[in-house]
Amino acid sequence: MAAPVVAVVGGGQLARMMAPAATALGVHLRALVEDAASSAAQVVPDAPVGAASDEAAVRALVAGPGIATGRGDDGPADVLTFEHEQVPNALLDTLAGEGHAVRPSAGALVHAQDKIVMRRRLTELGVPCPRWAELPDRAALETFLAAVGGTAVVKTARGGYDGKGVRVVHLAEDVADWFEASQGAGGTGIPLLVEEKVPFTRELAVLVARRPSGQVRAWPVVESIQENGVCAEVIAPAPGLDPALARAATSLAVTIAEGLGVTGVLAVELFEVAGAGGGASTVVVNELAMRPHNCGHWTIEGSVTSQFEQHLRAVLDLPLGETGARARWAVMANVLGSKLPELSQGLAAVTALDPGAKVQLYGKSVRPGRKLGHVTVLGDDLVAVRARARAAAAVLAG
Amino acid sequence: MAAPVVAVVGGGQLARMMAPAATALGVHLRALVEDAASSAAQVVPDAPVGAASDEAAVRALVAGPGIATGRGDDGPADVLTFEHEQVPNALLDTLAGEGHAVRPSAGALVHAQDKIVMRRRLTELGVPCPRWAELPDRAALETFLAAVGGTAVVKTARGGYDGKGVRVVHLAEDVADWFEASQGAGGTGIPLLVEEKVPFTRELAVLVARRPSGQVRAWPVVESIQENGVCAEVIAPAPGLDPALARAATSLAVTIAEGLGVTGVLAVELFEVAGAGGGASTVVVNELAMRPHNCGHWTIEGSVTSQFEQHLRAVLDLPLGETGARARWAVMANVLGSKLPELSQGLAAVTALDPGAKVQLYGKSVRPGRKLGHVTVLGDDLVAVRARARAAAAVLAG
Repeated sequence: MAAPVVAVVGGGQLARMMAPAATALGVHLRALVEDAASSAAQVVPDAPVGAASDEAAVRALVAGPGIATGRGDDGPADVLTFEHEQVPNALLDTLAGEGHAVRPSAGALVHAQDKIVMRRRLTELGVPCPRWAELPDRAALETFLAAVGGTAVVKTARGGYDGKGVRVVHLAEDVADWFEASQGAGGTGIPLLVEEKVPFTRELAVLVARRPSGQVRAWPVVESIQENGVCAEVIAPAPGLDPALARAATSLAVTIAEGLGVTGVLAVELFEVAGAGGGASTVVVNELAMRPHNCGHWTIEGSVTSQFEQHLRAVLDLPLGETGARARWAVMANVLGSKLPELSQGLAAVTALDPGAKVQLYGKSVRPGRKLGHVTVLGDDLVAVRARARAAAAVLAG
Repeated sequence: MAAPVVAVVGGGQLARMMAPAATALGVHLRALVEDAASSAAQVVPDAPVGAASDEAAVRALVAGPGIATGRGDDGPADVLTFEHEQVPNALLDTLAGEGHAVRPSAGALVHAQDKIVMRRRLTELGVPCPRWAELPDRAALETFLAAVGGTAVVKTARGGYDGKGVRVVHLAEDVADWFEASQGAGGTGIPLLVEEKVPFTRELAVLVARRPSGQVRAWPVVESIQENGVCAEVIAPAPGLDPALARAATSLAVTIAEGLGVTGVLAVELFEVAGAGGGASTVVVNELAMRPHNCGHWTIEGSVTSQFEQHLRAVLDLPLGETGARARWAVMANVLGSKLPELSQGLAAVTALDPGAKVQLYGKSVRPGRKLGHVTVLGDDLVAVRARARAAAAVLAG
């Protein structure tokens, strides 16, 4: 009898943090890593080096044998999954056609890869989105800007993340370079879309997991605090959130997971918008990700089941674990860049400061603004928990 | 700058469960494993194959380069540690003399290797032990049996574990074979000792960790329930334990850690004995282990800092983490053998039964009575938590 084998495309911190969950479940993780020093390669024995865009590398990842341990784990992977969205969908469809389990499927994943496809589909599903439009040309942008009052957000449909591929504009001229790239012969060919600049009060996120057989479980709705377009802090649960809105947001995420046929973890990033005239707040969908996500790192210590364990369970079509919280409050603070030469040099100082802070280091070399690790603190007093998480992350940032 | 490198001798489930803790801390774990399919080898990339008794293998483990990841982790290990006590002390002393950090040291470790050395030293330290005696010959055993009322426990000084090397006797004749082996020319040469058969009411255990610089932290005292000489279940904290006795037991463990110069995790297994005439209960020391221990597996989910993370912190001389409990009760139930062909085949059934049960599988092939994995359940109602942990472990046992 064989141990389950999960093949994951990607060698970053998300694949790295799947490793402890795989260890606990007795699951063999096989990761396609960018190079032998990748974050995940440091902790996953079966980590072939190759690019996500390389068909032969992805095929070898799925087929095995990889590095076997004599547990019948030298054959094809039971399932192929991903830690990022930069994967070739045509190949995924081909692999699925050959009988391999690909979760999420190419048909679901495209909604996390292409913002125009995502907006179209969510609009069809009746999911609240910002006003938006495709941008075939500058005239379309001028029309949209006039309609929304002169300010809007232009996005590239593909390839954006952590604030990249997103620009606030007042004139079509502000994204002249993007129009040229999207349409010029030598350009990217990546289409553009525009969205209204939502006057949000804060950002929320809902994380759910869905199995192929249909079971869905959601974690509590969290608040996400961004700095320079990058997640800096997550508070679970979102403080002071109207319970009715929390239910609505969760229900929205379940609708999306089911409507798009997502398998694995789905992160739905939301804007909370104040109600007109003091009425109840509402939410609109900002972004989607179909994998474990920064907004769910708090679940490692803060929830009965972590998003990494749940993702493995979901893609293997195993029953999902409980998603309740282990403490009243959990706060996760990212370490974005560091003045330390190596993050582990800060381990002594951070624990001396706060013996209860839980540290996750990603084994990455230090670069300005790079996600190098995070800290999670649990407790009863939100003000204290936030201050502790921030202070511990600051120590690691040097 | 280099990532910290911890070299561990042993490839079983204890080294395996160190891996997730090393991943979180950004520590490079290098494990000397019995073979490429060992429990730890499945989840530790840098896992050279070799025997703990092989000087060249242990030297290579310490010296590196092992499998490097470009983080300056291809040099000598920062520290050498162990997941079991079957290591050659002379070599450890030699390595320490050459300037390598060996934690725990050979001088400490010998107390977990040799029960006669342990009993002598604990007696010197004033730590309560069962009445005991060395057994140079059968006459010594006859004398001891007469003194304690006709029943006693004979142990081999070295090499026993999980009930092996321990025998309840009424006559010297009951261990005639052991006397022959210990003294015969072709025998083991392992000396014997005898202890009174303690009329204990239950078994307790205290787990502490100590850094070279002296800091010590203890987890709550637990109750350990043995079946056929093997740990079957651990309840944290020990139910109904007199707080004064809990403090005394903890203080005892700290005395032992300091008195023996232990670095890393120390497990002190205790017998609780009812007070004479309804007086307060007392404890006597049963066994010692200088490594993460089965009685501390509950700390993975149940404590702020797991014994595996704490062991790494302690041997690296990093500040120790908090050891408080995350829930009122934690119960860990071992899976000892299984009717399933592979334990992971039971994952679906165990989660379907109990989505809140936390499973750890060790990736080992199934053999009768073998420790194959464990389940931990946290909660407020001890009766329910125990029943859930037992039921989940029973599912994995087939």
